[in-house]
Amino acid sequence: MTRLVEYADAPPEVRAVYDAIKAARGVPDVNNFWKALAVHPPTLARTWESLSAVMAPGALDPVVKEMLYVAVSIAHGCDYCIASHTAAARAKGMTEAQHGELLAVVGMASETNRLAQALRVKVDPQFEG
Amino acid sequence: MTRLVEYADAPPEVRAVYDAIKAARGVPDVNNFWKALAVHPPTLARTWESLSAVMAPGALDPVVKEMLYVAVSIAHGCDYCIASHTAAARAKGMTEAQHGELLAVVGMASETNRLAQALRVKVDPQFEG
Amino acid sequence: MTRLVEYADAPPEVRAVYDAIKAARGVPDVNNFWKALAVHPPTLARTWESLSAVMAPGALDPVVKEMLYVAVSIAHGCDYCIASHTAAARAKGMTEAQHGELLAVVGMASETNRLAQALRVKVDPQFEG
Amino acid sequence: MTRLVEYADAPPEVRAVYDAIKAARGVPDVNNFWKALAVHPPTLARTWESLSAVMAPGALDPVVKEMLYVAVSIAHGCDYCIASHTAAARAKGMTEAQHGELLAVVGMASETNRLAQALRVKVDPQFEG
Amino acid sequence: MTRLVEYADAPPEVRAVYDAIKAARGVPDVNNFWKALAVHPPTLARTWESLSAVMAPGALDPVVKEMLYVAVSIAHGCDYCIASHTAAARAKGMTEAQHGELLAVVGMASETNRLAQALRVKVDPQFEG
Amino acid sequence: MTRLVEYADAPPEVRAVYDAIKAARGVPDVNNFWKALAVHPPTLARTWESLSAVMAPGALDPVVKEMLYVAVSIAHGCDYCIASHTAAARAKGMTEAQHGELLAVVGMASETNRLAQALRVKVDPQFEG
Repeated sequence: MTRLVEYADAPPEVRAVYDAIKAARGVPDVNNFWKALAVHPPTLARTWESLSAVMAPGALDPVVKEMLYVAVSIAHGCDYCIASHTAAARAKGMTEAQHGELLAVVGMASETNRLAQALRVKVDPQFEG
Repeated sequence: MTRLVEYADAPPEVRAVYDAIKAARGVPDVNNFWKALAVHPPTLARTWESLSAVMAPGALDPVVKEMLYVAVSIAHGCDYCIASHTAAARAKGMTEAQHGELLAVVGMASETNRLAQALRVKVDPQFEG
Repeated sequence: MTRLVEYADAPPEVRAVYDAIKAARGVPDVNNFWKALAVHPPTLARTWESLSAVMAPGALDPVVKEMLYVAVSIAHGCDYCIASHTAAARAKGMTEAQHGELLAVVGMASETNRLAQALRVKVDPQFEG
Repeated sequence: MTRLVEYADAPPEVRAVYDAIKAARGVPDVNNFWKALAVHPPTLARTWESLSAVMAPGALDPVVKEMLYVAVSIAHGCDYCIASHTAAARAKGMTEAQHGELLAVVGMASETNRLAQALRVKVDPQFEG
Repeated sequence: MTRLVEYADAPPEVRAVYDAIKAARGVPDVNNFWKALAVHPPTLARTWESLSAVMAPGALDPVVKEMLYVAVSIAHGCDYCIASHTAAARAKGMTEAQHGELLAVVGMASETNRLAQALRVKVDPQFEG
Repeated sequence: MTRLVEYADAPPEVRAVYDAIKAARGVPDVNNFWKALAVHPPTLARTWESLSAVMAPGALDPVVKEMLYVAVSIAHGCDYCIASHTAAARAKGMTEAQHGELLAVVGMASETNRLAQALRVKVDPQFEG
């Protein structure tokens, strides 16, 4: 298991990121992903900055963004990310029924992705921009 | 490139599926994925039946389902599926701004998926059901 | 596109591998994979040696080995490998009906693989050795 | 870990699927995959229906189908699926020697899949349908 | 194929990024990846900012960073990225012999990755931090 | 968990490989990967032979080879391989700062790999050989 950098042991530039995450999320402590990433402070800072920009409300609803995050995490087999972003999606309003349909879509896409690759299907002209 | 089964050359059980797809989508012909899958009629029939059930309106909006489909297809590197489901998402109302944010989320998730796996991060107790 | 090393231009250690492949397969020329791999002669030699050992008849029938090769190639999205090993499987006796069932199994496995990962299912005790 | 739906707590449409699985397999209880999937009854029912159709005896021997399932599960890194389908393949007759050769083929395919992609090898004309 | 945003048609915030890339690399035009990404200007700007920070000289030599980039791109099956970063690695000094060894390592890692997953190997205590 | 073949229980051809690994690495015992792979002695022998050839000093420094191995293992989501090869890279001289930059490059490549695939970017002529 990787080393986790706790707040008490963190250098100032790491504490600054932890403080920003805690303030943005209204939580008393950051989760393990950030404590692990703190082994490389520049990557910690850059990742938080990018993530908070990307996941902010915009043209897509925040819960839709979290569901997209979950879908990608499943396809990449990232157990930690599935657990943390499924929890985040629920916290932002994803219902059980929506989670069930998300699973169904991800499963179906996985199946047809591999069938299309297996059959080496040529892209139809109408799908080319 | 795989063999494509055209309507004129298709056996009755394949024509029945093509007819169902054309009726459901209001299109004059099915796209290449279905023509390729028709080399195995039972898989063609089962896949269409499943896909139409999964992608029907439900707890999730159809355009959200298409965006989830696109996200998974990107993570699996399926070029055909990216092309066809991005077109489908646009047809169901995805705007350019929404597509841009979808790309940003998929990219960000891909980065943090690999970082979490690289660091072997232990799942926080609050994310375990 | 990568550089292909043709027999006429190949150094002796590459020609030796090409000769071995041609003799083993009874073909007048090696296919593009080998001509591309010849940019690094030690990897060419080692890969051919390993491949011919692994794919030789043994406890599994050669056509089953080729079908397993196709299944893995689909899951990795390797277009070249799907094309070449599907052809090899057919040459070793895979029928159209068998190919259709192979596609169905690969698609189904892809779907349930992602569902099991999405749900973070704990392995049942009876499946642990 | 995801919630598992036990028979005693399951709604009728879930019990119906569990009963079908138990009858088809001659087992006293379903395994964890199904209990987890039961959080979304329509996906549970559809998945069982598809799986039992796909894995039924046909042009391919059931043990070959299970070995293909294992191969795909390895390439997708699905630990649960590797465990459960390796057990299923053994139950259907896969010997230790066959399992060893399956591993060798999957490893070899993984290596050459990535080499072919790395070298961007163009598909030979004879492999195009 | 996706739409490419050429400099002449680009809005000011896109031109600013193109100018930064051209200045940093000493090239007369940006490559297609950036022209495609320009459909979403915030992602274009953020990606360039992150990429130039990450790939700058540091504890690792720039050519080593490019080789790592190539290795990841192969494992993700990204044809565009393999082509562009292999070219970048060569431009930064990667020799043919080094490229050959990179291929060999990537192939070997791919094989043993899948074998370790297939065998569900428990991590040795000395590898746990 | 898979069965591990301990030295005391190993047949002569397995002991011979274990002895070779122990001698090459100067360790008192082989790690779990090899003990698991020993269920198929021909694959054990071939894998060790290939691995020791590929990872030997050559045009690339051994620590660079280990870092490439780690990068591929992350992209394939192989937890065992990440743990063992990160340890190996450290033993061969990878510093904490280098590990941090490796993580940053792998994360960045993962993000742009998926963006390039999502956008279906055409390879620029100058990147084609």
